[in-house]
Amino acid sequence: MSTSEERLLARVALTWLTEPGTRSVHRLVQQLGPVAALDLLLDGGAPEASLGTAVSARTVAGDARAVAADALARTERIGARVLTPEDEEWPARLDDLHRLVLSGTSRRVDLETAPPLCFWVRGGWPLGEALDRSVAVVGARAATGYGLHVATEIGYGLAERDWTVVSGGAFGIDAAAHRGALTAGGLTVAVLACGVDRPYPMGNAALFDRIAEAGLLVSEWMPGADPLRPRFLIRNRVIAAATRGTVLVEAAARSGATQTVNRAIAMGRRAMVVPGPVTSAMSVGAHEVLRDQPAARLVTGVPHVLEEVGRIGTDLAPPARGPERPGDLLDDEATMVLESLPRRGVVGLDALAARAGVDVRTAMRKLSLLEELAMVLRRDGGYALARPATSARAPAGPGRGAGR
Amino acid sequence: MSTSEERLLARVALTWLTEPGTRSVHRLVQQLGPVAALDLLLDGGAPEASLGTAVSARTVAGDARAVAADALARTERIGARVLTPEDEEWPARLDDLHRLVLSGTSRRVDLETAPPLCFWVRGGWPLGEALDRSVAVVGARAATGYGLHVATEIGYGLAERDWTVVSGGAFGIDAAAHRGALTAGGLTVAVLACGVDRPYPMGNAALFDRIAEAGLLVSEWMPGADPLRPRFLIRNRVIAAATRGTVLVEAAARSGATQTVNRAIAMGRRAMVVPGPVTSAMSVGAHEVLRDQPAARLVTGVPHVLEEVGRIGTDLAPPARGPERPGDLLDDEATMVLESLPRRGVVGLDALAARAGVDVRTAMRKLSLLEELAMVLRRDGGYALARPATSARAPAGPGRGAGR
Repeated sequence: MSTSEERLLARVALTWLTEPGTRSVHRLVQQLGPVAALDLLLDGGAPEASLGTAVSARTVAGDARAVAADALARTERIGARVLTPEDEEWPARLDDLHRLVLSGTSRRVDLETAPPLCFWVRGGWPLGEALDRSVAVVGARAATGYGLHVATEIGYGLAERDWTVVSGGAFGIDAAAHRGALTAGGLTVAVLACGVDRPYPMGNAALFDRIAEAGLLVSEWMPGADPLRPRFLIRNRVIAAATRGTVLVEAAARSGATQTVNRAIAMGRRAMVVPGPVTSAMSVGAHEVLRDQPAARLVTGVPHVLEEVGRIGTDLAPPARGPERPGDLLDDEATMVLESLPRRGVVGLDALAARAGVDVRTAMRKLSLLEELAMVLRRDGGYALARPATSARAPAGPGRGAGR
Repeated sequence: MSTSEERLLARVALTWLTEPGTRSVHRLVQQLGPVAALDLLLDGGAPEASLGTAVSARTVAGDARAVAADALARTERIGARVLTPEDEEWPARLDDLHRLVLSGTSRRVDLETAPPLCFWVRGGWPLGEALDRSVAVVGARAATGYGLHVATEIGYGLAERDWTVVSGGAFGIDAAAHRGALTAGGLTVAVLACGVDRPYPMGNAALFDRIAEAGLLVSEWMPGADPLRPRFLIRNRVIAAATRGTVLVEAAARSGATQTVNRAIAMGRRAMVVPGPVTSAMSVGAHEVLRDQPAARLVTGVPHVLEEVGRIGTDLAPPARGPERPGDLLDDEATMVLESLPRRGVVGLDALAARAGVDVRTAMRKLSLLEELAMVLRRDGGYALARPATSARAPAGPGRGAGR
C-alpha cells in the first residue's frame, strides 16, 4: 500500500470512527497526519475522554481499517470517488470551516464544525470547479406552493446564469431548487447526510439520478451510511461553507434551514432570505432571520441574489427594456454559440464549443437555452439550427436569413 | 372681532391662499404672527416670487378673509371645529415637521413640509390625546386579500391594546386598518386630503360616518376642499409626523405609502414594514423599503409593532425572565440621564444633557421614557426626579432612597 493510499484509508477510517466535524480529530490530523492520528486513537490515546469513549464504542462494531477498506472497495463499485484535501478538486472554501465559531450555543452540532476529512462524490464534474460559482438554496421540507415556485425560479435563474445551485436534496425547497437548475440545463450539487449510493429521501430517487448524471451527489459519510437525524445538521455547515452565499426560501421557526443561514453569516458568506406572507407558518423562520440577523439581506429573486454574490460587470447586467425577439434575450456567449452553428447540417459539441470560443460546459448550457427557445435542435448526435439564426449585430448578408 | 378670532381667521385664510406645508408661509407666521403674515402676503410682500404668483392667482378667485369667514361659518354648520397650534388639543408631535429634511429630492412635496397652520376636526375626541398613543397603518389602494387581512388584523390588534390607528381613509389598506380598529371598539383617525365634510373616496362614505362618530376625521384643508392629487402626498407628512410609527402593508413600487414611511424615518419615527409574497406586485414597494432603508423594521403582526412603538412595561409582553424594577430596564443613556438629575429641584434640558454627556435629542427621548416610568416629572419648565433615584451603582446613602 502506497503512502497516499494509506493516508486515504486512514481518513476514511477516522470519518467512520467519529462523526464528521469533530474538532479534536481534525486537529490531530493536522498535527500528526491522518495515519498517526488514527493509530493514536485506536491505541486509546484520544486527547479527550468523550472522544475516547466514542472511539471505543465504534471499535466494538468493527475494525476501523477493515471498514475503511470495504468502504473504498464499495466506492469503486458504485462508480464514486473519495476526495481528500490533498486532491486538486477539493473545494478550497471548505477550509474556512476552521474559523467557524458560533457564539451563544453549546450544542454539539454548533461546536463540532471542523472541515470534512474526506468527501464522497458521484458525478462527472470536478467538485471544486463546480462549487466555485455556487449558491445554496435551502428551506422547508413542508414547503408551500409559493415556496416551491420561488425556489424553482431561483434555481433556474441561477443555473441559467452559470451559477451552480447547491442544496441538500430534501423534499420541498431543496428539491425545487435542484429541479430548477436541472431544467435550465445547469449544474447542481446535492450535499447529502448519508452515503452517495443510497441518497435520502427515497422519494427523490429519480431526482438524485438526474443530479448524479448532470451534476454531483456529495457526502462526508461513506457509502451505505444511514441518514441519521443529527447528520443533517452536521451536513449544513458544508452547504454554508462551500458556497458564496445561502438563499433561504421558506422555513418554519428555528428550523435546520435557518441554521444553515446562520452558519453562512458566521463565515462571512452572503445570507439572503426570501420573505413570504406573514400569515404563513412556513415563512416564520425566514422573517425571524430577517429580523434577528442584520447581515441577512431580503431578496425577492435572482437579480437580488446576483447583486449579493455576483461580480460587478459580469452578473450585474443592465436592466433590459422590453425584449422584442427571442434573440434579444441571448447573452454574448449564447449569441456566439448560435452564430457558430452551421447554416446546414449538424455539428458536434466539442467542435461547436471550439468554434464559439467557449468551454464545453458553457456551450452545453447555452445550447439547452437555445433549445428551449426553439432556436436549436438536437439531431444525429449533434446540434443544428432549428431555423436560420437572427443576429442583432450582423446584418443579414446574402445566404444568411434565407428561408425566413 | 377678538384678537384670537382674528388670528384664527388669518390662519384659515393663509391655508387657502397657499397649499399647506409651504415653508416660507410658515416661517412668516412664526416671525410676524398669522395676521401680519396674511397682511404682508395680500399686500404683495411675498418673500419669494413663486409664492407671490401663487397668492395673486388665488386672490383673483376671491377675497381671502371673506373665504375664511365663510369657511369658519361652514365649519360650525357641519359640526366640525378648527384647531390651531395655540389650542390645547393641538398634537405636539406635529411640530417635529419643522425639522423634517428629505435628502436627495427636489420635488415640491418633499421640500414644502412645514407643520400645518390649522386643522379641521370632526369627532368628539381631543385630537392631541387621540394621537398620543397612535400608529399609522398605510398601504396600497389596490390591495390584495392578503394585505387587507393583515391590515385589518393589525388595526384590530392595536385598537384592542388602546392604540389609536391612523390612516388616510383610502380604499384598500387604509380602509381595512380603520375598520379593524372600529371593530375592536377602538379609536381611529382618518387624515384626509380634502374637506372633512366631504371625505374622499365616496365609496367609503359609510366608513367615514363611523369614524366621525367613534373617532376623528381631520384635514388641513377647509370644508368643501377638493381632494386634488398632490394633496395626498402633502397630507402624508402629517400621518408620519402625528404618529409614533408607521406600518406599511402592501405597496406597489414607489407608491405614496412608501413615501409616508420615508417621512416617518426622516423624522425618527418607527418605520415598520409587513413583507409579502415576492410574487405579488403589491409587495414590491414594501420589499423595496426593507431593502433600501436600514431603519425600516420587518414586522409580521401586532406583537412586533408593539415592540417598536410600545412603552416598556406597558406594551411589551413580559419577557421570560422578568426584570424586577423599572430601573433594571434602563439602558446606559437613560441611566446616565437619570443619574444626572439633581436630588432636589429642577434642571433644564440643555444643562441635563450636558451633565449626562448625551445630545439634547437623546436626553429628550430618555426623559420621556423616564416620565413614562414615573421616575421623572416635568416641572417649572424643567425636569425633576419624581422620587429619589435608585442607582445600580451608588449604594443608597442617607436621604437617598428615602420614600421607597
